[in-house]
Formats: sequence, C-alpha cells, structure tokens
Amino acid sequence: MKALDGNALRTERTRNRVLAESLRLFNERGEASVTTGFIATSLGMSPGNLYYHFRNKEEIIEALFGRFAARMDVEPGPATDAASAIEDLWLYLHLMLEAIWEFRFLYRNLDDLAARNRRLRARFNALADRKHAVVVQLCDSLAACGAMRASTGEIAALAKNVLVVATYWLNFRALRGRPGAPAGADVGQGAYQVMCLVAPYLRGEARQHLDALAAMYR
Amino acid sequence: MKALDGNALRTERTRNRVLAESLRLFNERGEASVTTGFIATSLGMSPGNLYYHFRNKEEIIEALFGRFAARMDVEPGPATDAASAIEDLWLYLHLMLEAIWEFRFLYRNLDDLAARNRRLRARFNALADRKHAVVVQLCDSLAACGAMRASTGEIAALAKNVLVVATYWLNFRALRGRPGAPAGADVGQGAYQVMCLVAPYLRGEARQHLDALAAMYR
Repeated sequence: MKALDGNALRTERTRNRVLAESLRLFNERGEASVTTGFIATSLGMSPGNLYYHFRNKEEIIEALFGRFAARMDVEPGPATDAASAIEDLWLYLHLMLEAIWEFRFLYRNLDDLAARNRRLRARFNALADRKHAVVVQLCDSLAACGAMRASTGEIAALAKNVLVVATYWLNFRALRGRPGAPAGADVGQGAYQVMCLVAPYLRGEARQHLDALAAMYR
Repeated sequence: MKALDGNALRTERTRNRVLAESLRLFNERGEASVTTGFIATSLGMSPGNLYYHFRNKEEIIEALFGRFAARMDVEPGPATDAASAIEDLWLYLHLMLEAIWEFRFLYRNLDDLAARNRRLRARFNALADRKHAVVVQLCDSLAACGAMRASTGEIAALAKNVLVVATYWLNFRALRGRPGAPAGADVGQGAYQVMCLVAPYLRGEARQHLDALAAMYR
C-alpha cells in the first residue's frame, strides 16, 4: 500500500467522482453526445478543474476502459470435475455480462470508438484475445475429462461464436427489447444463450448439469 | 409495369444517384459524419435540388433501409432433401451477409440509429422477427426429416444465436481484423460461423454434407 498525503487523496477522490459521473452520463446519453463541459457542469465543477484531472474526453474514456478491463480480468479456475466446471462457467458468464452492462457505452459504438482511438482498439483486442484463449482452454479441459466431445476446429469456431454472442448480446437486447426495460434479466438470458452454444458438445453429467441450470431460463 | 414520362424518369434517376452516393459515403465515413450538404457537394448538385428529392438525411436513410429490406427479402425454398437444405442455407447466409456488408452503415451504429428513429427500429425488428421465423421453420423441417435432432427450446435458442452472429459478424470482424482488410473473406467466414451453430444438431447425411462445405473454410 502506498502512503497518500491529503492532496493526493483529494485528487484521487475527484478523479473517481469524474469517472463515476462520466460513466453514468455516457451510458445514459451515449458517449458522442456528452462533452467534458457537460460532465463538469453536471458535477458542479469548473471546466478548468476537470481539465486539471483529464486533459480531454479521450483520457476519461481510456481511464474508464482501464476500470472495465480490471473488472473483466477474472477467469474460472481449474475445475475439479465436470459439474463444477459448468457452474464456474455459468458464474463467469454472469460476471462478464454484468461488467459489459456496467460499461455499456463502450459497446454501443464500439466500431466508432475503435476507429478513432487506435490505443483503445488494441486494448480491446488484447482483452478479446485473452477471452478467446480462456474459452478454448476451458473447452480443452472439458474435452480432456470426457465431458465434451469436439474437435480442435469445432472448439476454435465455438470460441469465436461465444465471443460474438457475449460481446453483442446486450446490444442485441437493447435493439430487440422495449426501450428502458430492466437489464437484469438480459444478463441472465445472455449467459443462457452462450451456454446454449456450448451445450450440444457436452456429454454425460456435464450436459445434465447444464440442462438443469438452463431449465431456469426457458 | 407503370408508364413513366420524361420528368418522372429524370426524378427517378436523380433519386437513384443520391441514394447510391449516400450509401457510398455513409459506409465509408460513418453516417453520423455525412451531412446532406456534403452529399450534394459530392454529387455536384445544389442543396436545393437534393432537398427537392429528400427533405432531410433521415429520409435518405429510410429509403436506403427500404432497399436493404428488399435485398433481405429472400428465403430458402422448401428443401427436397437434407443435402440440398444445407446447400440452400449456405447460399442463403451468403446472400444475407452480402446485403449486410453492402448496407453496413446501418449496422455500424445500429443502437443509435434505432434510438433516434423509432420507425427504423420497428422496421428493423420486423425484419429480425421474419428472419428468426425463417430459421425456426428451416430447423423444424430438418428435424421433421430426421436430419436434425433438437428440442423446441434448443431450436428457439439456436435461432436467436443465429440472428446475433449474423447481425454482428461484420462488426466483430471490423473490430478484430486489420483496418481496411478486404471483406469478401469475412462474408464466407461469417456464413461458416453461423453454420457452426447449426452443425452440432445435424445428423447423418446433412452433417456430412455440412462438414464437407465447412472444410473449405477451416
């Protein structure tokens, strides 16, 4: 733990306030229609004070991406058996989708954001690469203990589909659902849809365990 | 066929020119950064002349959506056997993904577009509903002839995943691939990824036929 003097503490608190308010406004109104001036006004802060902490909106977005990446930086541990591997995957998907929901402005205009900010694009892709590797690893370990039957090619395609559905599920729901509907159920439904990608490759106890979990969502 | 006088013909040609140029610019630069003034200049047309044909950008977007919807308005016919059902689905997916690629600006900021234009949102959802029904119908007919083994619940979840992957595949590729890479291969890869969603539910000849087609993409 690093020692903080009073000034550093105050700086940290202000940065946190700016980031929390920016996240709220970006999610609510879309990042493109929120200026730094608007954020400052919303916090009752002078633009100069905000500028002291973040030189522009891009710095705020990158700091928020850092927090998002930290939230996403969890992985299911090595499973002791097929049933607990399925439970871990289920919980893991909920955590991921909840993080995406919390930072949903990043996903709303992912293309635009990535097109105008190469650093953000690279960081997002590093995160996606990591997640792809996690899914492949998990499938390999399920295949090794006989709980999954899938070829290397099938696992590669499956991992890619898991990534596409997990990445865009909440966008899809926002488009298809009623505007302003509560999102809690969408996270559960998203986890269910991803599990449905994996399900047909599962065998024996793993499959039964998944079917029991899935029954709650049908 | 309706008879057209010279004036109506000229009007039709101008509308077509405006729509073709708008589509090109929207796809290239993103719809948000292209104004009607910019479209007029790019065509060497006065803003007043463009305004005579389309009162605002939203009208241009809606007209383009109409053309997109017409392109999407094809469906695989009733299949005579499992192998031809798989070939039809394969071709169908290519047609759909090519249409999405051609009108990709609609998909780049789908959320924003749908949020600000309720009519467009409703039309997009009607299209998605139709596509969902087509996939369910196709799976049901494959199941009926023994080429697919899947429960009603599995088919419902599968159809939803087919829709998510097909809708967002090109966005995902744009994000993950190198900027400016050719998109032709992405359409084929997208069709392959969607077929991989269906594959584990196929049995017998249908499965073998799909595996043979898929081998070209692995």
